[in-house]
Amino acid sequence: MNAPNDLHPRVERRPVPATMLDALKARFGERCSTAAAVRDQHGRGESVYDAAPPEAVLFCESTVEVAFVVKQAAAHGVPVIPFGVGSSLEGHLLAVQGGVSVDLSRMNRIVQINAEDLTVTVEAGVTREQLNREIKDTGLFFPIDPGANATLGGMSATRASGTNAVRYGTMKDNVLALTVVSADGSVMRTGTRAKKSSAGYDLTRLFVGSEGTLGVMTEITLRLYPLPEAVSAATCSFQRIDDAVQTTIEVIQMGVPIARCELLDANAIRAVNRHSKLTLREAPMLLMEFHGSEAGVAEQSATVQEIARGHGGTDFEWARTPEERTRLWKARHESYFAALQMRPGCRCQSSDTCVPISRLAECINESVDDAEASGIPYWIVGHVGDGNFHLSYLMDPDDTAECARVEDLNVKMVQRALRLEGTCTGEHGIGLHKMPYLLDEAGPAAVGTMRSIKRALDPKNIMNPGKIFTL
Amino acid sequence: MNAPNDLHPRVERRPVPATMLDALKARFGERCSTAAAVRDQHGRGESVYDAAPPEAVLFCESTVEVAFVVKQAAAHGVPVIPFGVGSSLEGHLLAVQGGVSVDLSRMNRIVQINAEDLTVTVEAGVTREQLNREIKDTGLFFPIDPGANATLGGMSATRASGTNAVRYGTMKDNVLALTVVSADGSVMRTGTRAKKSSAGYDLTRLFVGSEGTLGVMTEITLRLYPLPEAVSAATCSFQRIDDAVQTTIEVIQMGVPIARCELLDANAIRAVNRHSKLTLREAPMLLMEFHGSEAGVAEQSATVQEIARGHGGTDFEWARTPEERTRLWKARHESYFAALQMRPGCRCQSSDTCVPISRLAECINESVDDAEASGIPYWIVGHVGDGNFHLSYLMDPDDTAECARVEDLNVKMVQRALRLEGTCTGEHGIGLHKMPYLLDEAGPAAVGTMRSIKRALDPKNIMNPGKIFTL
Repeated sequence: MNAPNDLHPRVERRPVPATMLDALKARFGERCSTAAAVRDQHGRGESVYDAAPPEAVLFCESTVEVAFVVKQAAAHGVPVIPFGVGSSLEGHLLAVQGGVSVDLSRMNRIVQINAEDLTVTVEAGVTREQLNREIKDTGLFFPIDPGANATLGGMSATRASGTNAVRYGTMKDNVLALTVVSADGSVMRTGTRAKKSSAGYDLTRLFVGSEGTLGVMTEITLRLYPLPEAVSAATCSFQRIDDAVQTTIEVIQMGVPIARCELLDANAIRAVNRHSKLTLREAPMLLMEFHGSEAGVAEQSATVQEIARGHGGTDFEWARTPEERTRLWKARHESYFAALQMRPGCRCQSSDTCVPISRLAECINESVDDAEASGIPYWIVGHVGDGNFHLSYLMDPDDTAECARVEDLNVKMVQRALRLEGTCTGEHGIGLHKMPYLLDEAGPAAVGTMRSIKRALDPKNIMNPGKIFTL
Repeated sequence: MNAPNDLHPRVERRPVPATMLDALKARFGERCSTAAAVRDQHGRGESVYDAAPPEAVLFCESTVEVAFVVKQAAAHGVPVIPFGVGSSLEGHLLAVQGGVSVDLSRMNRIVQINAEDLTVTVEAGVTREQLNREIKDTGLFFPIDPGANATLGGMSATRASGTNAVRYGTMKDNVLALTVVSADGSVMRTGTRAKKSSAGYDLTRLFVGSEGTLGVMTEITLRLYPLPEAVSAATCSFQRIDDAVQTTIEVIQMGVPIARCELLDANAIRAVNRHSKLTLREAPMLLMEFHGSEAGVAEQSATVQEIARGHGGTDFEWARTPEERTRLWKARHESYFAALQMRPGCRCQSSDTCVPISRLAECINESVDDAEASGIPYWIVGHVGDGNFHLSYLMDPDDTAECARVEDLNVKMVQRALRLEGTCTGEHGIGLHKMPYLLDEAGPAAVGTMRSIKRALDPKNIMNPGKIFTL
């Protein structure tokens, strides 16, 4: 397996011709920015890479405007990089070949709520928290929740998931249809509001997870769920990580419909306690949530408590009020930023492997052994109910040797996950960082098929070029 | 909207050259058949079309053998049509451009059961009933159940669903990974056994539902589910279809996790009673099933009974024993064949529209009004929990006028479903019959995108050509 940086040949940046920039300025006025600070902010993300800023940023307000930008870009062979809130972890937003950034954050309207069908259509710039605020009085909610308050466009582009995926699935399971601006600037709709369909190729799921490389998603129709009659959250501490993981494995194998089952190691809890002013016991912990009827929730939690007890878990500590529950989950969602503060000036390199549940203990235990041996600060959170966890190193970006060691450890983690029949990325996507891992995971035939699709749908290679695979 | 037959230009059949046939015979021996009866059986399905037989049928026993056939076909530009048990309803199996049929029914091995991960890998020729028989002692089951005892390859190819989809999703939700023989004869794997992944384009879901037009699926990794602790099935009769539909809508909107919620109209029940020797009341009926813990099942069924009572539903009649339950569902699954017997010599034209649940009553009521007015025998079954139903006409194939009227009624049903934001096919696929409907539903931009993908992955147009769309 190659270290990622070997596989990023310095491709020439493609300039934005003056005629195109003029056309964009004429159309967008102030909403076409070439200010250094704006460009810089749009050419990075939460990744370990240095920014590679786009030439201009377009603050689009409609699908028609996005189509206008893409048509211009197609005419001039200029790259187009969609931007939501900039929370990508894998370098998706870097303008490695130059081009323009299409900022969708102003496309933040709820287009159509169909509470009676449990669906909603939103513009791509709506964030997950905004969506849940705006549909609050319908009695419905949207469960997918990556750590950041990402946009639904960004979440669709990376096939995101989060803490609720163990029960509600990922973006692939919850996007019904998309409005997409294709690489030639034409606009299409990839599905209807029907709950299921066998009408031709599943374009919706081809675009979900395509990381902006096949087109720009501008509107998204999502599934919603009735707010459960009862919700209860609990924490349970364990002596060793392995005990927490074994508990999770049994819960999943027994088919308990647990809604959330999150692992935090002692390092993560230490960070979270400090950042969110909590007093959680600083030991490996499962943070769980149960959804259902009053009786159903009681039944599920009794089963899980019994399993946890069998692995030396302490008694459950319940979040007694909705406020307490919200506080716990907010702390969990902010764990990434909490951890960053544990080593000032550091950068965070997060793994994202996901393996079949029976292999999870082996995968985590070996990774922890390596991390302990390295002496580099690290922390673990994991959507362990799905077999997915993030072991993240806090590394000094100026310490080249340390960065190289972290990369080696990462490669080892990915190799381990692949050996255990898993994937290099459960939810963050490939972006720049995982391109060599994808090749190892999927093999040349599958990646070749992806390339063929890319060439067919984006013959000029203008849609977020240089991501997922080299062409 | 055009009548389907207008859009099937008579494309020339592409001959299988003698050199290719010789190579196939040398490799397959007796398992390469050119017997008229065998070819004829492989060039039809359960569709209304007359058979268009392939030139030869290859009974393949491994992925390597399938790859051998496809390489030969690629070298000679000859169409390849995958075949499972021949239960397609939309003409998928017709060799409209000639070519060879790849019969996968002998690829019926269970490759790997991973009960501890709730996954199984099977060869494409394993049928759904065989799978459930073979995993019986693991305590797990595979829920997707189209009417026929189809192969898992065929079910993947058409993105099938069935009666359990309301709770367990369709094939798109339950296929984790595929082994695919591409159009050039190379073999790829489209995923891992991890429960979720963001590793590049979602090739798995691109192939699921591609109806054999992008490659031949030879192995399939599926999700399994723990057999529920408690299962109970009940029937409930209603005075009018609308009452049954309104009950369903409320059940879904309330978020009751009902496992199965099937509508049968009085005509369907009459057929089923006669064919399966049952004594169900010949009135519109919901056939339901609840999965969960003992308490959960009791709770769900109490909620549904209350809703049904509000719509004039009679008391629930419970299937008291597992045998009784199996008998009821077997009758439901055989309803297609039961209905065919109601008009000897007839052919059956089934609609497959699926609409958002709030539009279901309007969609069914108007379709019933048209059917009643037509005077042509019809019957309705529906996976109404998903907004999907089949109104099927029993028509005299020799009565051209009647066939034309049925087609007009079908077109009207599709138009209605599209107006109600639904789809022309919930689970049967496009095949030959629904090609013009797909164009109406998805629009030229989306169908154009599908065509581009097809051309990129199958440049010689040998994989089941002439289906889904014209090239």
